[in-house]
Amino acid sequence: MGTLNSISPFTGETQFEPIAESTAADVEAVVARSAAASAAWARLVPTERARALRAIADALDADPASLAELAHQETALGADRLVGEIARTTFQLRLFAEELESGRLLATEVDEALAGLPPVGHPRLVRKYVALGPVAVFGAGNFPFAFGQLGGDTASALAAGCTVIVKDHPGHPHLAQTLTSLAQTALAGAGFDADVFQSVRGMAAGAALVAHPAVQAGAFTGSQKAGRALFDIASSRPEPIPFYGELGSMNPVFITQAALESRRDELATELATSLTMGRGQLCTKPSVIFVPDDQAFIDALVAALSAVAPGQLLSPLSLERYVQGVSGVAGVSGVTELIPTSAGSDLTVAPGLLATSYENFLQNSEELLEECFGPVGLIVRCSSETDFDTAIGHLEGALVATVQAVPGPDAELARHLVDELSFIAGRVVVNGWPTGLAVTPWQHHGGPYPASTSVLHTSVGSQAMMRFVRPVVIQNVSDDQWPGLL
Amino acid sequence: MGTLNSISPFTGETQFEPIAESTAADVEAVVARSAAASAAWARLVPTERARALRAIADALDADPASLAELAHQETALGADRLVGEIARTTFQLRLFAEELESGRLLATEVDEALAGLPPVGHPRLVRKYVALGPVAVFGAGNFPFAFGQLGGDTASALAAGCTVIVKDHPGHPHLAQTLTSLAQTALAGAGFDADVFQSVRGMAAGAALVAHPAVQAGAFTGSQKAGRALFDIASSRPEPIPFYGELGSMNPVFITQAALESRRDELATELATSLTMGRGQLCTKPSVIFVPDDQAFIDALVAALSAVAPGQLLSPLSLERYVQGVSGVAGVSGVTELIPTSAGSDLTVAPGLLATSYENFLQNSEELLEECFGPVGLIVRCSSETDFDTAIGHLEGALVATVQAVPGPDAELARHLVDELSFIAGRVVVNGWPTGLAVTPWQHHGGPYPASTSVLHTSVGSQAMMRFVRPVVIQNVSDDQWPGLL
Repeated sequence: MGTLNSISPFTGETQFEPIAESTAADVEAVVARSAAASAAWARLVPTERARALRAIADALDADPASLAELAHQETALGADRLVGEIARTTFQLRLFAEELESGRLLATEVDEALAGLPPVGHPRLVRKYVALGPVAVFGAGNFPFAFGQLGGDTASALAAGCTVIVKDHPGHPHLAQTLTSLAQTALAGAGFDADVFQSVRGMAAGAALVAHPAVQAGAFTGSQKAGRALFDIASSRPEPIPFYGELGSMNPVFITQAALESRRDELATELATSLTMGRGQLCTKPSVIFVPDDQAFIDALVAALSAVAPGQLLSPLSLERYVQGVSGVAGVSGVTELIPTSAGSDLTVAPGLLATSYENFLQNSEELLEECFGPVGLIVRCSSETDFDTAIGHLEGALVATVQAVPGPDAELARHLVDELSFIAGRVVVNGWPTGLAVTPWQHHGGPYPASTSVLHTSVGSQAMMRFVRPVVIQNVSDDQWPGLL
Repeated sequence: MGTLNSISPFTGETQFEPIAESTAADVEAVVARSAAASAAWARLVPTERARALRAIADALDADPASLAELAHQETALGADRLVGEIARTTFQLRLFAEELESGRLLATEVDEALAGLPPVGHPRLVRKYVALGPVAVFGAGNFPFAFGQLGGDTASALAAGCTVIVKDHPGHPHLAQTLTSLAQTALAGAGFDADVFQSVRGMAAGAALVAHPAVQAGAFTGSQKAGRALFDIASSRPEPIPFYGELGSMNPVFITQAALESRRDELATELATSLTMGRGQLCTKPSVIFVPDDQAFIDALVAALSAVAPGQLLSPLSLERYVQGVSGVAGVSGVTELIPTSAGSDLTVAPGLLATSYENFLQNSEELLEECFGPVGLIVRCSSETDFDTAIGHLEGALVATVQAVPGPDAELARHLVDELSFIAGRVVVNGWPTGLAVTPWQHHGGPYPASTSVLHTSVGSQAMMRFVRPVVIQNVSDDQWPGLL
């Protein structure tokens, strides 16, 4: 096995001590401990698991500034943003704790016995949930806290009663180890078995986790290529397991003529903000914008984007992929670089903007719909909103789609667009922007492939927990006859 | 393409006219019509889809005797049983209609906006469901109505707003065509687009369905081999789709010492009834029985089974597979044939019974846990209930597990067994039998692989409908501002 080096995004140089990757024997030992811890964890009363989640949240809250500083050294995401992300992470851990305390999500349902109902009988059925077992979690590089080691996948799997094994993200290996230690210390300190949360390192270890017979589910946030490879391992096992991958999305935006006319400059400014949030490294970034051809809007957008300060991408590798991706799209015939992409010698990039015609989009949609992780978007100049329907037919599954329209005059058009977009996206935003994903009870962050490998499920919001439990029905048992059994 | 022949289970001869298998072009045409019908069907108000389901149920109720007679000629399942199965099928269609009319399952959920909630924001989110699109359904040979053409998978997919394409079962091709015509006529007669329900014929056509880009989900009841092959096609598509396969299960039974002592003869009689119900051709058949070694119980069970009249299996192929399967298990060293399996020259079989020791089961569990579709079971003679825990550790995922115990003395033992079995089965029956699966709102018919390829989902009961819808969240929309949009 090799070693994992932490590369500074500021210098491109190795920093900190190298970390050994997990060997096959390491993975075996970690999975064995996880499986051993799993039986008791799954049977723990939910309020105890809530206490464990709160212990982890409290540990994160103890010194967010230091954690953010370490994360910044490995991701360049900025201390303020990272302190905010830690708050999002602890909010999320505590939301699942509240769900467990309220008993809402894992509530038992009962079909009482009905005598003589033809033709199929109707004994008493009590439906409850059991945890699936050990879960392999692959966090994201762009959200080292909220979608990382202790992010939504980990929080929801632990809440569900599953033990968790994270494959550390190679982009922030030292932060990953720090967070694993923090969680294990918090768990042990609160009287729990620290083996319910463990981690491994290295690509081979990650693949071995998903293939391991004792691992019962996988959860992933990241690239389409890596996510699909792991999904394929999960699906081709002798006993396949569910694999919840959030792989990527172009998150299309549709702007109506009336919206342009009423709020042209505001739309340009807001879109520039959304497009460059997190330096364009968000899975909810609005990557392709369909808008009636309007030079004043384009000018305003170019001005707004040009006013955004250049920023550091996550890593030299992120920068390389971004520059390659943008030049791939820019190289498609009929594409104009409204703001050419420029990478500074210090690994920073300034926002870029591409544009093409509606007709050219239809001809080359496959090449044009390549997600570029960074501050760039593609404007598709339409002749009018009548082009939108055909354009939607060319889109892949998306995490989120956006409509900008004017209540009143656009009533019918907006209704139509929201309806059509509901069939390709997991979330449809009206007169807002796709970035800034709320963590709420009924949020849905998923959608048709490649947005998600598991189209029915969400990775954000309370329902994310339901990915890691399955129903079981107990037939013919009443409390009278079998006190304490249910 | 070849032709599909209907083989009489009574004579082994071809009966009726041969039916042409669907060509690749046929499949293309059928899928194109299904996809075209899908948009309007998905958007229909649920009460209209309920009306369509009721129209199909009414058509089945118009002349069950004739349908049962045709089914009997192709399956030998007996007219009485088949008339009962039609009643189960119409009950099921109407249950989904009631769910749609009540609005319970597809209810919209709302997270109202919360101002200034740190750190993630909280706009108004309305969560609703959209249908996945065309669904490929593969019915079972042993339930030509309830798990067939117009069975639970079809009913739940249509209820969800998906169009359905069934791959006709080769065991009852004429019944399949009759049921397709019946449903299409009923749909058209009630004013619906008959293309929402279609069918194709032949293995190649079935595989092509699951691979087709326009098909959005698959549902299957049948053998592990065929189901896994289709699951693999669904999972390895460029855009993978959910595939809900119910593949098979040994449905273990555990009988306590106290239960034996209090109800020895009744248990033997009831087990013989459950084991031979539908001539042992049920996915819920109790195939392996763990019981403290007790000769009086064995004698009673042998007597009860020997009193069951021989019966016809579904087809010559079923008989061949059954005889092969039983001789495979009987050939494992240490297995005794308590009642040798005998196949009559007229393709009937009498119930059989195998037995082995607990120690031999542990050594050869893999070979012994081969599902044999027909009237046979395997008794595992245990020294006492203390053997049960280790035995459970050797079992695969099951649709249902059964515990026979005595309230009071067995309170703690039953609680323990139900808890352990909950982690390997989708349903656990106490002091009842696994056969006779109730169709109710919260029923769960699924379980860990190979019971199901999709461990979270059920193929029976109201929740089966939720396999064919996915959530979508509409953000930032209120009825005030956008009347009629939601």
